[in-house]
Amino acid sequence: MEVNKEAKVTLVGAGPGSSDLITIRGLRAMENADVILYDALVDKELLSTVRGDIPKIYVGKRCGSHSVTQSEINKLLVNASLNYGHVVRLKGGDPFVFGRACEEIAYVESFGIPVSVVPGITSAISVPGSQGIPMTSRGVSTSFWVMTATKSNTEISDDFVLAAQSSSTMVVLMGIRKLDEIVRKASEYRGSDTPIAIIQNGTLKNESCAVGTLSTILNFKQQINQSMPGIIIIGNVVAKHPSFFNDEVQRVLFSAL
Amino acid sequence: MEVNKEAKVTLVGAGPGSSDLITIRGLRAMENADVILYDALVDKELLSTVRGDIPKIYVGKRCGSHSVTQSEINKLLVNASLNYGHVVRLKGGDPFVFGRACEEIAYVESFGIPVSVVPGITSAISVPGSQGIPMTSRGVSTSFWVMTATKSNTEISDDFVLAAQSSSTMVVLMGIRKLDEIVRKASEYRGSDTPIAIIQNGTLKNESCAVGTLSTILNFKQQINQSMPGIIIIGNVVAKHPSFFNDEVQRVLFSAL
Repeated sequence: MEVNKEAKVTLVGAGPGSSDLITIRGLRAMENADVILYDALVDKELLSTVRGDIPKIYVGKRCGSHSVTQSEINKLLVNASLNYGHVVRLKGGDPFVFGRACEEIAYVESFGIPVSVVPGITSAISVPGSQGIPMTSRGVSTSFWVMTATKSNTEISDDFVLAAQSSSTMVVLMGIRKLDEIVRKASEYRGSDTPIAIIQNGTLKNESCAVGTLSTILNFKQQINQSMPGIIIIGNVVAKHPSFFNDEVQRVLFSAL
Repeated sequence: MEVNKEAKVTLVGAGPGSSDLITIRGLRAMENADVILYDALVDKELLSTVRGDIPKIYVGKRCGSHSVTQSEINKLLVNASLNYGHVVRLKGGDPFVFGRACEEIAYVESFGIPVSVVPGITSAISVPGSQGIPMTSRGVSTSFWVMTATKSNTEISDDFVLAAQSSSTMVVLMGIRKLDEIVRKASEYRGSDTPIAIIQNGTLKNESCAVGTLSTILNFKQQINQSMPGIIIIGNVVAKHPSFFNDEVQRVLFSAL
């Protein structure tokens, strides 16, 4: 360990999973790091291909097993930068999308340690994309809404209800365990033929995707691993998925194109 | 030009602007291309650093001067792949976010030419991020909605009105020329103190950012280039921007954190 290195922190978005979906800038930051702190969603291959000579510390939180708290991560960032110099904090997806980046920035900066952010490809957009599902498509959807399904008190959020009333593509993160309620609530405002997809392990080799409609998707629940994160996409763009090819839904939905 | 190369097309998201915000996979696709078709939002530096030995064809469309139509681009993609082999179609941002990727994929595949997609970092998220504005922030916003402001008939869309009623961060693309109407309509549902930012040339050296509230932002219109694209962000997360630092708004908005 070299001493007297300048303490600084770079929050880097690692992207949705696959190790080649990080940016050039993100990879360069890793190559210039003195220590890397990474979370549960970061691909091990990405970690193993860069800098075998520096410490890489796991600071993951997993749904249901909060092994490291946010407060502990904040302190680790400060301690690591004071002890090692340049900390790369590698976060799955993009730091500014449900990444708690603001909390980490505020805490680290309060010690006079500079922080910069390298954006990453958010899973919310790229994971549906990896299945051929676009966020927007001319004549089908001109907006998309990315949200968590529930408020902290576990009720379905008011924003979810407004989104369901819109024509927007709905992208629901952290909603796998609330799937029944999500489907029920969306069905109150959108037709039962509305396409829905649930993707897990997006962009990785073990990626899985369940596709159906609001009226059929719960039949595929056995395909969904309740203990893993996943992304739920609701909206007519889902009919761009190959599963809908040559299907009646496909013809009806895209006849206007 | 080599002959008998396999015709194929890769749609690559170039990211928000800066040439090091493309992904590793995207850069590799460029390095393996036989021809590159690029649009107006792609950074010239990115083009110049990769493959000086292959044709690079501009197929840009700019607001108000549609030099190349979508139909012409579709045909160019097919012709280029049949003539050259591997076409990289480089698109600003992400191909599946207002990128008309579906139209290009459908057209090219109808000729039996395979298409793959490499995601890019969408400007919608990363450009606000480059100014320190997150999409979501604990206690401030738990969702974000990315949209165009107007329907094809230039009316403010119904989805915009639903978004304005929500607590979601609103990200409005292609709305610079409709700013007055956007501010007026948002003000009907959100308080006049709601922060708003307008960013142009995001992540580039000439990046500019106007920050204010719904009641003050129109005073800064002279800072905005009406002939350039820009991103409008409305919501309390905008108060994370340094301009709001130590400001009354900052203290009120983030006192709950």
